[in-house]
Amino acid sequence: VVHLDHDRCWELLARARAGVLSTLHPERGVDAVPVVFAVVDGTIVLPIDTVKPKASTRLRRVANLELDERCVLLVDHYDEEWDRLWWVRAHGRAREAAPAPAVLAALAERYPAYRTQGSIATVLLLVPDEITGWAARPPR
Amino acid sequence: VVHLDHDRCWELLARARAGVLSTLHPERGVDAVPVVFAVVDGTIVLPIDTVKPKASTRLRRVANLELDERCVLLVDHYDEEWDRLWWVRAHGRAREAAPAPAVLAALAERYPAYRTQGSIATVLLLVPDEITGWAARPPR
Repeated sequence: VVHLDHDRCWELLARARAGVLSTLHPERGVDAVPVVFAVVDGTIVLPIDTVKPKASTRLRRVANLELDERCVLLVDHYDEEWDRLWWVRAHGRAREAAPAPAVLAALAERYPAYRTQGSIATVLLLVPDEITGWAARPPR
Repeated sequence: VVHLDHDRCWELLARARAGVLSTLHPERGVDAVPVVFAVVDGTIVLPIDTVKPKASTRLRRVANLELDERCVLLVDHYDEEWDRLWWVRAHGRAREAAPAPAVLAALAERYPAYRTQGSIATVLLLVPDEITGWAARPPR
């Protein structure tokens, strides 16, 4: 078992294509939703997009974070060979913001769908206060 | 956009190989951890195993659930083709229990590592009170 060091956690996080964002829900307790993201200057940026169809433009994740900024992003790699399992987890606080040009550029570089003007409405800026990672063995 | 019906949610959930369990943490707010699971008689069973190396046998997820049983299991499928995205989410309550023979058998059938005697210490029994699912288009 390997506890991944700080740099390795960031490296795996920055390379991952998708993750799960967990937030606090006032009645249900917890919520979780799949997300895509980019890392920009140590901040994890999660787009609120107009591309993937949604039930409402008023997203539950945004409402939850307005009530309590605490959240966690988990990126994990599942493999039927369990000695290849790994995950990275970022605890922190997130808030909605207008996307800065550098943020839009980072997301567009990672995800072709975001190269279309207007595909990102706003973003969640997740500032991690703790990043931890685990691997069954050192990942390549 | 497709809101998956109840049966389809259970079907996709039962077939998925892994998911993310989110729980409430008394200070951090939320926690999330990758999990494997089986569905047995409408209950989602998550093994606390002795196979995958862990920092402690006293797992944080178990301690969290003792303080607040509310949790959510998210199973999601990421694909670079975004019209193939889907996810299923089960909100409910979970508690630790000794594994019944039928539960051990279901887990062993799904995951070969669990065919070894003693590989599962206890289980979390997650009783869902709401299952929802989403797909960019109807999954196959």
